[in-house]
Amino acid sequence: MDIEDIAKRLMKFAEDRYWEQFHSPKNLAISLAVEAGELLEIFQWLPENTPYDENVHEKASEEIADILIYAIMFSQKMNIDMKKAVLKKFEVNENKYPVDKAKGIAKKYNEL
Amino acid sequence: MDIEDIAKRLMKFAEDRYWEQFHSPKNLAISLAVEAGELLEIFQWLPENTPYDENVHEKASEEIADILIYAIMFSQKMNIDMKKAVLKKFEVNENKYPVDKAKGIAKKYNEL
Amino acid sequence: MDIEDIAKRLMKFAEDRYWEQFHSPKNLAISLAVEAGELLEIFQWLPENTPYDENVHEKASEEIADILIYAIMFSQKMNIDMKKAVLKKFEVNENKYPVDKAKGIAKKYNEL
Amino acid sequence: MDIEDIAKRLMKFAEDRYWEQFHSPKNLAISLAVEAGELLEIFQWLPENTPYDENVHEKASEEIADILIYAIMFSQKMNIDMKKAVLKKFEVNENKYPVDKAKGIAKKYNEL
Repeated sequence: MDIEDIAKRLMKFAEDRYWEQFHSPKNLAISLAVEAGELLEIFQWLPENTPYDENVHEKASEEIADILIYAIMFSQKMNIDMKKAVLKKFEVNENKYPVDKAKGIAKKYNEL
Repeated sequence: MDIEDIAKRLMKFAEDRYWEQFHSPKNLAISLAVEAGELLEIFQWLPENTPYDENVHEKASEEIADILIYAIMFSQKMNIDMKKAVLKKFEVNENKYPVDKAKGIAKKYNEL
Repeated sequence: MDIEDIAKRLMKFAEDRYWEQFHSPKNLAISLAVEAGELLEIFQWLPENTPYDENVHEKASEEIADILIYAIMFSQKMNIDMKKAVLKKFEVNENKYPVDKAKGIAKKYNEL
Repeated sequence: MDIEDIAKRLMKFAEDRYWEQFHSPKNLAISLAVEAGELLEIFQWLPENTPYDENVHEKASEEIADILIYAIMFSQKMNIDMKKAVLKKFEVNENKYPVDKAKGIAKKYNEL
């Protein structure tokens, strides 16, 4: 899946509707928080490990699409290279959580 | 940028650290909301259209990487095809906001 | 505990620091979402029913104070009477969730 | 307005409906984030300083009531004394943001 293609289509979609004026980074960050809240709402009262049904899957797909869409639009507006940002985060996390140490902590958690 | 490759690397990273046990859809939805809150915090007191500096760009890149990472992990756990979900959303939005109508509303907003 | 007294003290605190200029309803709604995200972060990887320790209690107290503070400031800016709003919500919820029906649903959930 | 009275009524309301089983601190923190997202949604595309109309006021009142209700329920479950928590936060903030320093920063912001 190619994020650049989605980005182009999103920019065109907004441009055609004169929506760019509303798409400040601050407003798009608000949109991301709003959509993340809507995704979370689906799981609000569900036990952590209930098998989810078709209805949950359908609603979650819609919210995750909104989140991805706003994340891409935000990155466009801020000139963020999402691929580079993710690769950098991988590097940070690999140093921050070395395999052996992380395994030990996970095991302890598991015994809570 | 290829989401499938990131997904594989993320799954391997979590597996190596025994972290899969924590990655229920509910917990990953919580993580998305937490990260969206951290992104929003950057803009909390900034005027809507202030030009952002290098520091804001750097912090925003980190948060957007976290959001993308959790969105991909969530989709893996829920068997959501992100590409399909985004394409479906495009279709919905193109019907919901026809160009002419959307332009009219945007214009009115603009005159507020 | 008297919300009006806290409200007065909060307004004075902001006024003394020339902070009122930043306290638009939109910005205060952002602050509430940011603080709710920080509260949620505490529980991000904790199992739902782990007994919480002193550290969790301490951090949760701080976040809940921030949430209450911003909720009061927001209400002041929007001329919302919090007491009236809560009493109205009670009425709505009592009609929406009659005791007998709600009990039945809770029982079914419980058997999941 | 007396938070203790609301707290008692909320506990009774939940108890009557067998809802206590769902009200873990983790779930109530989720509810707070969800409601904060709903409050934020109202302002998502509004310019920061638009005068708000009756409709915005009405919807904001409902969301702020939900936020206060969940904050009180969360505090009950965690044995948090909200009054004490707010007073402590006042003390922290008064030391963290001394009047003269805060004024200076606000003035600089204002000139952006």
